[in-house]
Parts: sequence; C-alpha cells; structure tokens
Amino acid sequence: MRNIKLTVEYDGTDFHGFQRQPHLRTVQGELEERFSRLLGERVHLIGAGRTDAGVHALGQVANFRTTRPVAIGRLADVLNCVLAEDVKVRACEEVEESFHARRCARRRRYRYTAIEREQPSPILGRFALIVSGRLDVDEMNIAAAALLGRHDFRAYQASGSETTTTERNLLRLSCRRNGRRIEITAEAGSFLYKMVRIMVGALLRVGRGELRPEAVAEALATGEALTKCPPAPACGLCLIRVSY
Amino acid sequence: MRNIKLTVEYDGTDFHGFQRQPHLRTVQGELEERFSRLLGERVHLIGAGRTDAGVHALGQVANFRTTRPVAIGRLADVLNCVLAEDVKVRACEEVEESFHARRCARRRRYRYTAIEREQPSPILGRFALIVSGRLDVDEMNIAAAALLGRHDFRAYQASGSETTTTERNLLRLSCRRNGRRIEITAEAGSFLYKMVRIMVGALLRVGRGELRPEAVAEALATGEALTKCPPAPACGLCLIRVSY
Repeated sequence: MRNIKLTVEYDGTDFHGFQRQPHLRTVQGELEERFSRLLGERVHLIGAGRTDAGVHALGQVANFRTTRPVAIGRLADVLNCVLAEDVKVRACEEVEESFHARRCARRRRYRYTAIEREQPSPILGRFALIVSGRLDVDEMNIAAAALLGRHDFRAYQASGSETTTTERNLLRLSCRRNGRRIEITAEAGSFLYKMVRIMVGALLRVGRGELRPEAVAEALATGEALTKCPPAPACGLCLIRVSY
Repeated sequence: MRNIKLTVEYDGTDFHGFQRQPHLRTVQGELEERFSRLLGERVHLIGAGRTDAGVHALGQVANFRTTRPVAIGRLADVLNCVLAEDVKVRACEEVEESFHARRCARRRRYRYTAIEREQPSPILGRFALIVSGRLDVDEMNIAAAALLGRHDFRAYQASGSETTTTERNLLRLSCRRNGRRIEITAEAGSFLYKMVRIMVGALLRVGRGELRPEAVAEALATGEALTKCPPAPACGLCLIRVSY
C-alpha cells in the first residue's frame, strides 16, 4: 500500500462543502468517485479540514492509500484530467504509511477577504465578501488581539460540532488593508465548527462600528455567543495552507 | 425620453458574449429582458464593446433610453435586484440625449492576465490563463512595441468582421510581470474582431520562445496572419474601461 498526499485547490461556490454527503456534490465525494473509477479500486480520502459549503481552498490537504503502481511524477496531471474545472490537484507526493492528513496537521491557516464596494461585484465577489462603507481595520485589530492565545472558544462555535473540548490555541488573527481590500488571516492548530467565520463576523461588525471591540473579549470571558453576529458569509473564506 | 448610461461588470464565463443572440444567454439579452420587465417598456441597450463569449468586463459601458421617471440615485440598486450574480451594474448616470455608448467611445482598454502555474487553478483560472513554464516579458514587450501606432492590422483580425477599414491606432500594448502574474494591457480607439486576443496569442508565443519578436512586426508589414497563432483563450481577457 502506498500513501499519497495531495494538495487540492477548489472554488467552493458549487460544492456543498468538503465532506462527503449522500446525493450532494461535495469535494471529497467528487474526488473519491473519480479517483476510484480512474484507479479501478475504492479510494477513501482523508481531508485536513472540513470546509463548509461555499468555502474555497487554495491549499487543502488530503491523503489516500492505493495498491496501484502510480507514477507519482505525473499523478497530478492524470488526476486533473478526470476532475471538473472547479477542483484541481496542485501537487502530489508519496508519504510514509503513518501520514494522516487530519490527525497529523499541525496548523491550519485561513484567509477571509472583504472588499469595500457600493455595488455587488461579479468578478471580485466570487471569492470575497462585498461590503458597503469603510471598515475600521485598526478597531478590528484591537478586537482580534484579545482572542489570541489559548482560550475556551465556546462562544465562537456553531452548534452541531462533535468536538470533546472547546479549548483552542489561536496563533494568529490579524486584519490588513490593501486599498479597498481587507484580508483577515486566522491560524490555529485546529478550529471549532464555524469558528473562523463567527470570529470574522464579529470583527466585521466591529469594523462597521456596530460592536465595541471590548465585546469580542467579553464573549470569550463569559462563554456567551455574541447576539446579532452571524457567521460571515462563506464566499469570502479560503483555506490557504495546512502545515505538518 | 431620458438617456441612461450604465457601467456594467460581468463574469463572462457563462455568457455567450455581450451581443444579443436568439436562444443563447448573452449579457445584452439578459439586461434587456430583465430591464424591460422591470420598467414595463421595451428596453434597447447599446453597448460600447461586443465582448466575445467567455470574455469578462469590469467596465463595460452601455446606454438605453426610457420614458420612466426612474430615480437615478437608486437606479443601480434597483437594476441589480433583478440581475443574476454574474452581471451587475456598477454605476448609473443620466446623460445627454446624443450620448451613444458605442459611437461616442474614444478609447477602450483591455487587460489580459496570464499566470504561470504547473497545474490548472480553479480559483485563479476563472479570470486568467494558466500557463506552464516562464514567460519572457522583456521579449514580449519588444514584440509589442512594434505594433504601437496607426497601422493596417488586417493580419491581426479574425474573419467574420463587418468593418470597412482594417486600419487602427494602437495606443498601448504593454506587458508587466508581478510575481507569477503577467498582465498585458491593450488600449485603442477601437479594435478589429478578436484583435486583442490574436495579438496576445502572438505575444504569448514570443514569451515562450516559440516565435521571434520580429515575426510580430513582419506580419503587420505583410498583412499575412501568423500561422500557429490562435487567439489567446477568452477567460484571460477583461474589458477594463471605456473612455468618452
């Protein structure tokens, strides 16, 4: 058995998320189905992160085991031939038997993009949230700094999660302006269910002046979810990198 | 009768070009149909440039006349409510009766984007051409400079054009590298049919070392189209701006 590590990029717009679900188009489901047919054996894929419906990835990582004598140097080309235009393999490598894309992942980095525009944008809006008005990035960074480090993040998760502990170590949460484009980078060993989008939703409210920066830290302390802070829309979120 | 000028942005991927065609989804067709229903009168749209199937626009310009007492300040919002996600109005203004989006246009600016990557990219590849290997941008700029100015560009048009003269004044054709992203900007009063994509196709061959830069000027002089120089794929092209 050989163990193959894949780096996968996808436009999440037309997928119901990464994780396989019956009768729905998902990234895992599509890769497994097409690779199984190609290789003539049942392929089971392990993904590093279960991105939600509509979330994109530049650097999702997954692995699968195969008995086939695949030529690793051409494998990405071959796999891409059977994939649709909105999901492609960026790189393939053979890894040791023990490698597990989810359990071995040490850090996951996400980027959320918001663009200030008065009207929706067919070109920019596919991979970003369009916001009207101007965001106060300094205030957003004050709020973000209060979330850094190891905390109980139960105020920043959505229900429906299966996790045993709600403690996480947030390594990075920072906002940067480049003209009218605001990028929010979040990095941690792992995140709770919808945690990135809920944090970003709160930061965007701070940026609009609708929420005091201190409220973000208060929610962390009390464990009570912020009201009127829905998760930021999926279209702006992208899984950038998984580190091992 | 009021005359309304629109600036329109679209993701050209799922359109059969700008110009109305029976039974096909086109930008003009879709805008006319939806605005006619909204305003309760037949809307006829005049576009500045007839972008081909798959070509995008950040700043297409169009105008239409209406008898309706539309509130110009909210018109973009109202029009966008009835439009699909892949075409939106960026701005509206009322203009004088004589304004004609095509005839009055003084300059059209296009940008072609190519990105160097070994594998296709679902995220970057929607609005750019993915090329493997490295392009020599200096050589491309040498070739491009020879096309600048007023010339007979019949070697750089596709058949099927209705134009009376093949003389055009190319004001700008320049290539710029930003990391692995190469942007080619083309500007002229007007272009021949597929002229931008045919010029870019030649420049890309020069950039790959498959065509001498001098061949680009020779084709201009002889009027004979370059062989093995198909138009560059539509996905990388975007109509950036129309000036009046």
